[in-house]
Amino acid sequence: MEKTTLIKEGKAKRLYNTDEEGYVWVEYMDQATAFNGKRKDHIVGKGVLNNNIDTLLFTMLADNGIHTDFVKKISDNEQINKEVTIIPLETVVRNAASGSFQRKFATPYLQKFDKPVVEFFYKSDELDDPFINTNQAIALGIIKPGESEKLQEFALKINTLLKARFEKAGLELVDFKVEFGKTADGEIILADEISPDSCRLVDLKTRESFDKDVFRKQTGDLVTVYQEVLDRLNNSQEEA
Amino acid sequence: MEKTTLIKEGKAKRLYNTDEEGYVWVEYMDQATAFNGKRKDHIVGKGVLNNNIDTLLFTMLADNGIHTDFVKKISDNEQINKEVTIIPLETVVRNAASGSFQRKFATPYLQKFDKPVVEFFYKSDELDDPFINTNQAIALGIIKPGESEKLQEFALKINTLLKARFEKAGLELVDFKVEFGKTADGEIILADEISPDSCRLVDLKTRESFDKDVFRKQTGDLVTVYQEVLDRLNNSQEEA
Repeated sequence: MEKTTLIKEGKAKRLYNTDEEGYVWVEYMDQATAFNGKRKDHIVGKGVLNNNIDTLLFTMLADNGIHTDFVKKISDNEQINKEVTIIPLETVVRNAASGSFQRKFATPYLQKFDKPVVEFFYKSDELDDPFINTNQAIALGIIKPGESEKLQEFALKINTLLKARFEKAGLELVDFKVEFGKTADGEIILADEISPDSCRLVDLKTRESFDKDVFRKQTGDLVTVYQEVLDRLNNSQEEA
Repeated sequence: MEKTTLIKEGKAKRLYNTDEEGYVWVEYMDQATAFNGKRKDHIVGKGVLNNNIDTLLFTMLADNGIHTDFVKKISDNEQINKEVTIIPLETVVRNAASGSFQRKFATPYLQKFDKPVVEFFYKSDELDDPFINTNQAIALGIIKPGESEKLQEFALKINTLLKARFEKAGLELVDFKVEFGKTADGEIILADEISPDSCRLVDLKTRESFDKDVFRKQTGDLVTVYQEVLDRLNNSQEEA
């Protein structure tokens, strides 16, 4: 398979067409952004780390029955994915209070929820990715009636699997963001990526952050932290 | 029945205890506020108008099977309500785009929705009444699982009745806000008020505003407009 034309350059990935129908070529970039792209840094080594972490997690999810767009890793910082039409909703699952939830509701940092909280954000750069509810998403034609329940159920299954996997690596999954896509035959599958860019992770004991918060809050070195996440996942995989 | 101690003074009403258990005394004030209380004006005649409009609408809803906290009007600007514990959620129903929906999603003013859109806002002055979804409201202990669906269904029934009633009066119901309360035996009933303070209404033909938007946007005289709403409701009642 060969990559052909660039489809789009996102905040941390480039997406290319390939010479085989139904597949796209993903290149993880050495770039980190925060505050909806207002801050942007070149970070050597980040692309390789996220490609490795994403490959490991998507493979684990697929092994557990989750349908995903992941096909194979083809180089240190590249992978082949199935071509999907992305549903323009960021689906967030929270196990404890942090980020926008904590700011909005003035809850204590990392206060645990009895049940995970699912939220949707409308992917729109012009509108600054606004928080949206199911009724609004249907009214705006983003999803059809009934799809919200499917996405929530899907996201909660992924949460259960990811949470357990990170716990084995000594990390608590505070929250994460996923995106879903529709295949040509209309199936909704997990798409985009899962990495410390899109998860909040804290050490089970020390409560230190092991995710993009170290970049957002400038409290640590992103590459050191992401490398530690990958190492812990790899080491706990061998034990499993 | 006599009023006793003041329970609270809101933005447009004072609530008093009474000498009979299970009842509260409501006094509609000559006051209008906008932008979460940042602007506040004394407006002679407003209290009487809202008391009359609210009485007319709550009576119509009760006649159509909606359980409400309304008991009786006792003076020009006062009424007796059942005592309830207010659920701290503002439930908004939208038939067309306006206000925060229009600002957030950049939709054309008064663009109609195929189905009404229900939204919840968490009643909290300190947090500035944030928009909230069902999962968040459950996580914060504001409602129990299953109650969101009940509130939405209840609000949509009220919407159908109000919309038809205002149409008879030559007005389109763009959106409105209601609050629900729990009685001592746990029943959820319609509470608070329905008036041009809490509804967006436009003339079916001219699209002129007949609600608090004339005060918010300073485009007209509030008392003139609210009087017209009351007159139209009264006149269309006689025809009905």
